[in-house]
Amino acid sequence: MFKKLLIRIFNKFFKVTFNFSKSYALSLPLRNHTVYMNSVIEEYQEIVSKALEEFSFDEWEPKELYEPCDYILSIGGKRLRPIIVMLGSYVFDGKVEDVLKPALAIEFFHNFSLMHDDIMDAAPLRRGKQTVHIKYNTNVGILSGDAMLIKAYEMFEDLPADKFKVVTKLFSKTAVELCEGQQYDMNFETQEVVTYEEYIKMITLKTGVMMGASLNIGALIADGSEEDCHNLYEFGKNLGIAFQLKDDYLDVFGQQDFGKIHAGDVFENKKTILFIKALEKAGPKEIDELKFWYSMKTDNVDKVYAVEKIFRMLKVDHAIMDLISEYTKKSMEYLDKVSASEEKKIQLRQLASSLIERQI
Amino acid sequence: MFKKLLIRIFNKFFKVTFNFSKSYALSLPLRNHTVYMNSVIEEYQEIVSKALEEFSFDEWEPKELYEPCDYILSIGGKRLRPIIVMLGSYVFDGKVEDVLKPALAIEFFHNFSLMHDDIMDAAPLRRGKQTVHIKYNTNVGILSGDAMLIKAYEMFEDLPADKFKVVTKLFSKTAVELCEGQQYDMNFETQEVVTYEEYIKMITLKTGVMMGASLNIGALIADGSEEDCHNLYEFGKNLGIAFQLKDDYLDVFGQQDFGKIHAGDVFENKKTILFIKALEKAGPKEIDELKFWYSMKTDNVDKVYAVEKIFRMLKVDHAIMDLISEYTKKSMEYLDKVSASEEKKIQLRQLASSLIERQI
Repeated sequence: MFKKLLIRIFNKFFKVTFNFSKSYALSLPLRNHTVYMNSVIEEYQEIVSKALEEFSFDEWEPKELYEPCDYILSIGGKRLRPIIVMLGSYVFDGKVEDVLKPALAIEFFHNFSLMHDDIMDAAPLRRGKQTVHIKYNTNVGILSGDAMLIKAYEMFEDLPADKFKVVTKLFSKTAVELCEGQQYDMNFETQEVVTYEEYIKMITLKTGVMMGASLNIGALIADGSEEDCHNLYEFGKNLGIAFQLKDDYLDVFGQQDFGKIHAGDVFENKKTILFIKALEKAGPKEIDELKFWYSMKTDNVDKVYAVEKIFRMLKVDHAIMDLISEYTKKSMEYLDKVSASEEKKIQLRQLASSLIERQI
Repeated sequence: MFKKLLIRIFNKFFKVTFNFSKSYALSLPLRNHTVYMNSVIEEYQEIVSKALEEFSFDEWEPKELYEPCDYILSIGGKRLRPIIVMLGSYVFDGKVEDVLKPALAIEFFHNFSLMHDDIMDAAPLRRGKQTVHIKYNTNVGILSGDAMLIKAYEMFEDLPADKFKVVTKLFSKTAVELCEGQQYDMNFETQEVVTYEEYIKMITLKTGVMMGASLNIGALIADGSEEDCHNLYEFGKNLGIAFQLKDDYLDVFGQQDFGKIHAGDVFENKKTILFIKALEKAGPKEIDELKFWYSMKTDNVDKVYAVEKIFRMLKVDHAIMDLISEYTKKSMEYLDKVSASEEKKIQLRQLASSLIERQI
């Protein structure tokens, strides 16, 4: 079945690499490779979608355990993480068939963490669909999540022993760091003061390290050097931090998106970078006002108007955009050091651009 | 720190191998090695306890994530699983220092599954102590459990790459099977009829395979042959089934134990092997009576009296003891095939004996 899939992927892949019909808006310098490069990410997206169909859990028993795994995967998303793994390999001329299952491992891991995080956050919806623990129940969310985490490890098993070990080690280290990040995030709910450093540490663990590790895993599989793997990791980590800062920014300053509540973080009194930066810049009056609003649980829209007004008055939006630029710049400095052709690296520049410049 | 621990372990280990002061009651033939052999299990127990202290999570941050891991480990137990891993290595003259961390991996995994199972079963107590989700909260139980599962994987990382891969593969396969077993067990709660075959399959997955895999992992690390690993696996798997059947038996027919409720499974309407065998042997009148009692949620002690009376009348206790003998015999047949000295294998016979003949 896997062989059949590979043939299909390759037919598809080679057919579409030369399909130059689409392009993206980009602000980072793309030299002369824009159109060729764009199709790579799109095609990886398609390859991952097809592979997820082939590796679905629909024939596994007991169905009560595996159906929720298929359900959460079906909710979709941009399959950002597996594509990043594949790009890590692409940069060093790795073969798609070697990196595909490890890429799915990262997608499985991501979906495991969604299932458990949604329980912990008591989230009823994800992308406008019921979360697993609501559609089924909490026990299902826990146990199917556990199974998916273990299945993620199993997706590395086609690698030869030496690569299997180094990849699995990095995966475990990163997976534990994500748990630590999630714990810090939960601690912040009851922690009176969250410093800027604490916040950056939390998002580094919760978002940055897995983006770095995904690229690193792809590069390891494609025999990237230790130095290149390190630089790609740091590129991904810093990009992940910038990505999360943008996420916080868009919560209040973004365009309306289907299935997302405007200023949801404000309603939930989440101490995001906006709140932390605002407190840094605020005078005593604004501090009192912010603390007043963040001390109450209310759906009252006046709260959002008031908080947003303070944020804008203190120019928090500009401060965050500066921070995002800073981390993006840092990530690009690491990418510059990677010893791969610009033709290859431009894919990663484009990815960075699409993540950082998104408006929703 | 690990080096220091190993020195301590070895000092301890070699000192006590010659400490012949204790012995166990055994019914399986022990030839002439009883006293020497007994001290091995006891000493492994001590080595594991000390190693768990050394590998405790008390210096890890954030403490909110890791303290519950230490707490559940501190509740203790007989450390049966890591000792089994060590015995799997002992049989093939493996070194203690090679197998110790993999043995802890199995203990970590076991404690991860306790944390999550206790949430799913809404269990308030374990060994007379508060369960993690009660002492802390459900989110802690989920996240600390996740971290412990990943930490279990990390305990294999000292193995050379080839062994790391084969051990990790077996571990993942078995860990997924445990999730499947737990799901079948939960399914049984709402499933009208549970057949004997379904029940055996469930306990094979929930208890048998990890006992088999633990021995197999120990044997793999000590370079046991493929055939020997297989036979040890089957020995452990069948022993695990017998062990779980004895657990079911003791729920109703066992001596009183601290922290355990007599006939707790009956109060909770659990379709254990006792209930399944009773239905097999019952006439229409007893079937009606059993179904009547198992259809109600009550703490009324009359329920236990009535159900126990039917069980005894139908000689369910004898039937289960026969089944236990059958699976124990099967396990011993596999052990007989293992190409190790009887001096070594007698440890496993003794382990089997202590598990199967326990009265609480």
